[in-house]
Amino acid sequence: MAAKQKVQIKKIAISTGGGDAPGLNAVIRAAALSAIMRGWEVYGVLDGFHGILSPEEYPDGGFVPLTRDRVRGITHLGGTILGTSNRNNPLKYPIIHPDGTREEVDRTDEIVRGFRLHHIDALITVGGDGSLAIASVLAKKGLRLISVPKTIDNDLDKTDVTFGFDTAVGFATEALDRLHSTAASHGRVMVVEVMGRYAGWIALHSGVAASADVILIPERPYDIHKVVEKVKERESQGSKFTIVVVAEGATPVGGGLSVLEHEAGRAERLGGIGEKVAADIHEISGKETRLVVLGHLLRGGSPTSFDRLTALRFGAAAVRGLEEGYSGVMVALDPPQVKYVPIEEAMGKMKMVPMGSDIVLTAKDLGISFG
Amino acid sequence: MAAKQKVQIKKIAISTGGGDAPGLNAVIRAAALSAIMRGWEVYGVLDGFHGILSPEEYPDGGFVPLTRDRVRGITHLGGTILGTSNRNNPLKYPIIHPDGTREEVDRTDEIVRGFRLHHIDALITVGGDGSLAIASVLAKKGLRLISVPKTIDNDLDKTDVTFGFDTAVGFATEALDRLHSTAASHGRVMVVEVMGRYAGWIALHSGVAASADVILIPERPYDIHKVVEKVKERESQGSKFTIVVVAEGATPVGGGLSVLEHEAGRAERLGGIGEKVAADIHEISGKETRLVVLGHLLRGGSPTSFDRLTALRFGAAAVRGLEEGYSGVMVALDPPQVKYVPIEEAMGKMKMVPMGSDIVLTAKDLGISFG
Amino acid sequence: MAAKQKVQIKKIAISTGGGDAPGLNAVIRAAALSAIMRGWEVYGVLDGFHGILSPEEYPDGGFVPLTRDRVRGITHLGGTILGTSNRNNPLKYPIIHPDGTREEVDRTDEIVRGFRLHHIDALITVGGDGSLAIASVLAKKGLRLISVPKTIDNDLDKTDVTFGFDTAVGFATEALDRLHSTAASHGRVMVVEVMGRYAGWIALHSGVAASADVILIPERPYDIHKVVEKVKERESQGSKFTIVVVAEGATPVGGGLSVLEHEAGRAERLGGIGEKVAADIHEISGKETRLVVLGHLLRGGSPTSFDRLTALRFGAAAVRGLEEGYSGVMVALDPPQVKYVPIEEAMGKMKMVPMGSDIVLTAKDLGISFG
Amino acid sequence: MAAKQKVQIKKIAISTGGGDAPGLNAVIRAAALSAIMRGWEVYGVLDGFHGILSPEEYPDGGFVPLTRDRVRGITHLGGTILGTSNRNNPLKYPIIHPDGTREEVDRTDEIVRGFRLHHIDALITVGGDGSLAIASVLAKKGLRLISVPKTIDNDLDKTDVTFGFDTAVGFATEALDRLHSTAASHGRVMVVEVMGRYAGWIALHSGVAASADVILIPERPYDIHKVVEKVKERESQGSKFTIVVVAEGATPVGGGLSVLEHEAGRAERLGGIGEKVAADIHEISGKETRLVVLGHLLRGGSPTSFDRLTALRFGAAAVRGLEEGYSGVMVALDPPQVKYVPIEEAMGKMKMVPMGSDIVLTAKDLGISFG
Repeated sequence: MAAKQKVQIKKIAISTGGGDAPGLNAVIRAAALSAIMRGWEVYGVLDGFHGILSPEEYPDGGFVPLTRDRVRGITHLGGTILGTSNRNNPLKYPIIHPDGTREEVDRTDEIVRGFRLHHIDALITVGGDGSLAIASVLAKKGLRLISVPKTIDNDLDKTDVTFGFDTAVGFATEALDRLHSTAASHGRVMVVEVMGRYAGWIALHSGVAASADVILIPERPYDIHKVVEKVKERESQGSKFTIVVVAEGATPVGGGLSVLEHEAGRAERLGGIGEKVAADIHEISGKETRLVVLGHLLRGGSPTSFDRLTALRFGAAAVRGLEEGYSGVMVALDPPQVKYVPIEEAMGKMKMVPMGSDIVLTAKDLGISFG
Repeated sequence: MAAKQKVQIKKIAISTGGGDAPGLNAVIRAAALSAIMRGWEVYGVLDGFHGILSPEEYPDGGFVPLTRDRVRGITHLGGTILGTSNRNNPLKYPIIHPDGTREEVDRTDEIVRGFRLHHIDALITVGGDGSLAIASVLAKKGLRLISVPKTIDNDLDKTDVTFGFDTAVGFATEALDRLHSTAASHGRVMVVEVMGRYAGWIALHSGVAASADVILIPERPYDIHKVVEKVKERESQGSKFTIVVVAEGATPVGGGLSVLEHEAGRAERLGGIGEKVAADIHEISGKETRLVVLGHLLRGGSPTSFDRLTALRFGAAAVRGLEEGYSGVMVALDPPQVKYVPIEEAMGKMKMVPMGSDIVLTAKDLGISFG
Repeated sequence: MAAKQKVQIKKIAISTGGGDAPGLNAVIRAAALSAIMRGWEVYGVLDGFHGILSPEEYPDGGFVPLTRDRVRGITHLGGTILGTSNRNNPLKYPIIHPDGTREEVDRTDEIVRGFRLHHIDALITVGGDGSLAIASVLAKKGLRLISVPKTIDNDLDKTDVTFGFDTAVGFATEALDRLHSTAASHGRVMVVEVMGRYAGWIALHSGVAASADVILIPERPYDIHKVVEKVKERESQGSKFTIVVVAEGATPVGGGLSVLEHEAGRAERLGGIGEKVAADIHEISGKETRLVVLGHLLRGGSPTSFDRLTALRFGAAAVRGLEEGYSGVMVALDPPQVKYVPIEEAMGKMKMVPMGSDIVLTAKDLGISFG
Repeated sequence: MAAKQKVQIKKIAISTGGGDAPGLNAVIRAAALSAIMRGWEVYGVLDGFHGILSPEEYPDGGFVPLTRDRVRGITHLGGTILGTSNRNNPLKYPIIHPDGTREEVDRTDEIVRGFRLHHIDALITVGGDGSLAIASVLAKKGLRLISVPKTIDNDLDKTDVTFGFDTAVGFATEALDRLHSTAASHGRVMVVEVMGRYAGWIALHSGVAASADVILIPERPYDIHKVVEKVKERESQGSKFTIVVVAEGATPVGGGLSVLEHEAGRAERLGGIGEKVAADIHEISGKETRLVVLGHLLRGGSPTSFDRLTALRFGAAAVRGLEEGYSGVMVALDPPQVKYVPIEEAMGKMKMVPMGSDIVLTAKDLGISFG
């Protein structure tokens, strides 16, 4: 599906799916302007694919024309002017039958039909692993498309990095800086939970940049007793405080979040593993602990200049790729250039923190414990 | 105790007590440099009054000389280079007798003696309401002193504002900005708990500045059904998200945090009322809700230029006040000038948000609900 | 003209004039929403009064309806959605006659007529001293209006402060922080020119907040030899660098910018007095000097939370004032409240830095020289 | 000289040379902690190599021990705690003979001897192209050393990027954002001069990230008439303002800064080419232009999280490299890993912006003109 074949393009559409990430609007702007520059018409699909699947819910049938005016001044704005939908996966769309039974159906045929109906020659989808899976199916069904990868967590394989991650790391670092002064003044253990369900990139980068003492990540089950040891070691060296950064996907040696699993709603609202770590440190060491859950704060905000640039590059590269005849590919960063990778090669693969990477070695040399 | 009587001063001490606040180091620097400028010697007392009450625990008896070098480049640093102690109140110092019984004793006599022993002519104490109470007793016992008010929450009476508050409001506003883009993209109710146990200043200022939809503050018990009404009103107007800012001291009509009161440790770790508000909105409206507790993030960080300036002014004013013969007074901001207020007049009085103030009227005109 | 008389209002207009200031959009939003809340119609006048004086140049006759949608999400944006015009003063409007002669005419009658023609019941003007002068005339001619003061420089009398100043001071402080590390590493004199033609507030506040060594302001002619003395004093104490903040309106003892006066275009482009100060220090001391002109950087950017709040309060207060029957008044901040001041009392009066104020005393105690 | 041979190391030294760059302190901290972790002693050389060449000027002979305490809390501080010297190149050290004649001598032998005298087993030098040249000579003379590259301008070959660049781009982007709102409100041409004597990376990255309209870089001589064309094109499309970013090394087609060359002192103080561009646009188009020279503001400030991390990685990698037996190499970033490159391969080679790179293509697709 990643064949390269030049075709005449007159009209394209852009959709953004999955969780929020700083830089989405920059992708939209770059793609729209690049397309307009080529004389193409550009439309945005509202709310992920929701706009095209439920056009009756939208005044304009779920499509909105993206003109120069519409995309002016949005590069630095968080969120996405197109909206997003991270619940109803078109591959497993939940429908409720008249008799009350529920079923999950594949609605990708409708999406392909919808784009054909609007004479859309090609699609740019911006999204994470889930969006790539959908895009892969759409491409196989004949839709000409290019995907732009999106993940705050930096856990997508085949691209060095993507937009949103730098902004998230920057904010987590700022938050850790703030807690540093308070922890130092008060003598406390501060546990800070950050995003990272499957990979610990945010925890690792912000933890090293902001001089954390302990970093717990999914790649390496932690031993809470080693964490407490670090707290005590610091105390014995005259440091009255300890900063522990925990990725939300971290798990203790021997297994996870069993108690909290049962109160999922709560855990979802407040983070979960961070609370466990804070409670366990307190119980074992008797030290006063405080928990801060950064969660949703990491998804929003104005993108950093790095993320703006990456997002603009990705948006423009998607249009150039379409012009050159690519389809079924994902834009990727292979510093210092962008490249195109077949979607199949990228999807479903997690990029984990290699425990032997130089960043991890750096962390260890700085005295940071991984539990 | 607020008499004004010029005396010869040769040596002063500075102490910082209570919770952290951005600007403490600026106070210390300004006071130290102003005193050195007058030929005085300056000492810092470590960890609140802990250094003077337990000198044996410190290599230098709890006193550290504050030279030009020691206070260089600290204006913009969060925290306090002197440390702080917000647990052991010298008025009610917990001691454990050999037989295991506990008692709370007044150790202020020891403090007065300690300063005399070190030939300290005058003291500058930086702290909140608790510190003012201690300072008042010390002044009555003959210690020459001036207090500098400190409260993130802006709830101290007799001063228009104090340092730290602007930084806290600025960060809360930034956090709300971040959540805005995410909430807007996803269609959610975001509940954000901020500091403010007795007064809702941070919630009010940041909520208005960052276009919150609902602000819940201690000054006005809220009706959760009115909050949900607002959520629905917004939905009916096409807004899929709602931002609710909750001061930690907010209480529902008819009374408070009864369930959580019993799990105080947890509530303390995670905030409490915010969780209740989020859970209740979800239960009543069925809407997806998310909670963010800013808590400790608001205490740290580099002070804003406004807070730096206020802190520097307060520190310098304390020294000028001592030189002019003031004692038993608190430095206060009465824009555009600083003034001196008898400690007795300031302490024990909360500055609440007047519900008829122009800021509250502004909030209402912007369509913000107070529940 | 500052009489208070209730009248029925159905339609109002808002205009923004003079230089840019962070917070203008917040004023517009608060005024628009407050008016809509009262059932009033709201219009914006484009480009100061240019839209109403030259309606033929605008597609919609210079008026743009301000709906909820139009003012959504603009609180934190710099600039003004209405545009501004700081050249053609309607009191002295330059016109060129057919025979080539130029004349300045008073066009305020046309403005009054224009508003009457559009059935505008009342006007809110946002602007500086020049705008107040115009507003005063318009009010005398019977136009119901309230002014909102605007000045980055904080030099307007009768209001404690206005929006934009805090943002400007914050950015100047950040810039000084940046230069600090460079100056310290390299051993240099850094001269930083900031805005402040008639009053030195920005220079004073940012200079104190960011630990400048010298602050030169219009309120006190400086002696360049005293500046050089300070550089040498620091050198003799082991400090290899000196930071000098210069307000653009600073003048040397014995008079000003004579050489540069003649190359006004250049001076205007680059600042002027800062260059003179840098050159003179270099010539007298032989020290390497560097000049940074912050100028236009201080006018833009996203307003701080303080400025957002002040701007929102002013915008809402203007509408409340109109509702209560005020006219010919200016909204002012008299902490902790806003109040209304007759325009005549406020206009034409500069608020200078009092050299005996506690901020100046603080600066001196910190060792800062005023030249 | 880049041979890899394991030797026993007991004592190392670190020096920082050349212009300031955000992240220098992070390199120092990571190198110091990594060395201490291995049981090595660590010393800092003061003021580039000045401390070792003129030990008599320093109380401690130009060496300062770098202990855990000395490097605590410095990761996020701009500048360098070791000082720097960017004038006296040890390869061409200016000396004045008793008869008044001047000569430039090679003092690297003294440096090698100095380190031997202090029993320094290995050296880590942090610096730009000039420092690499010195390091290369020192290595050839038998000093075991590893270099850490430093350049704000991102113009060093053989490393994808180095610390400081991201911070500089971030600040330039913020400054452009600020000017955007002002330019948009007033209708002006804003010319912004940024660093980049030989390569236009900062201009390119910040210009694209902040939606500049024109970007002038050394890699491509500009035609001022094309710049003016862009201004007019925008005007004809209804945009009243234009933002022009100019790298300090940009040159017009047909050659450069001839007039200003003769007033070098001034040009140095204020930038130079930016002034020419602003003046020329004004002359040709008659449009009001304003110049902002960011210069020295780009060198200082707290490093971004990206720059902190890169700097920490480089510092730690230098120590690991020494441990593994490397010498005569430079640490480099080859995402996602660091690697070691022979100094000879890296020095003297400029990394220019490839005009066919995807960032330049992106800029063009966004409608940005390169003059």
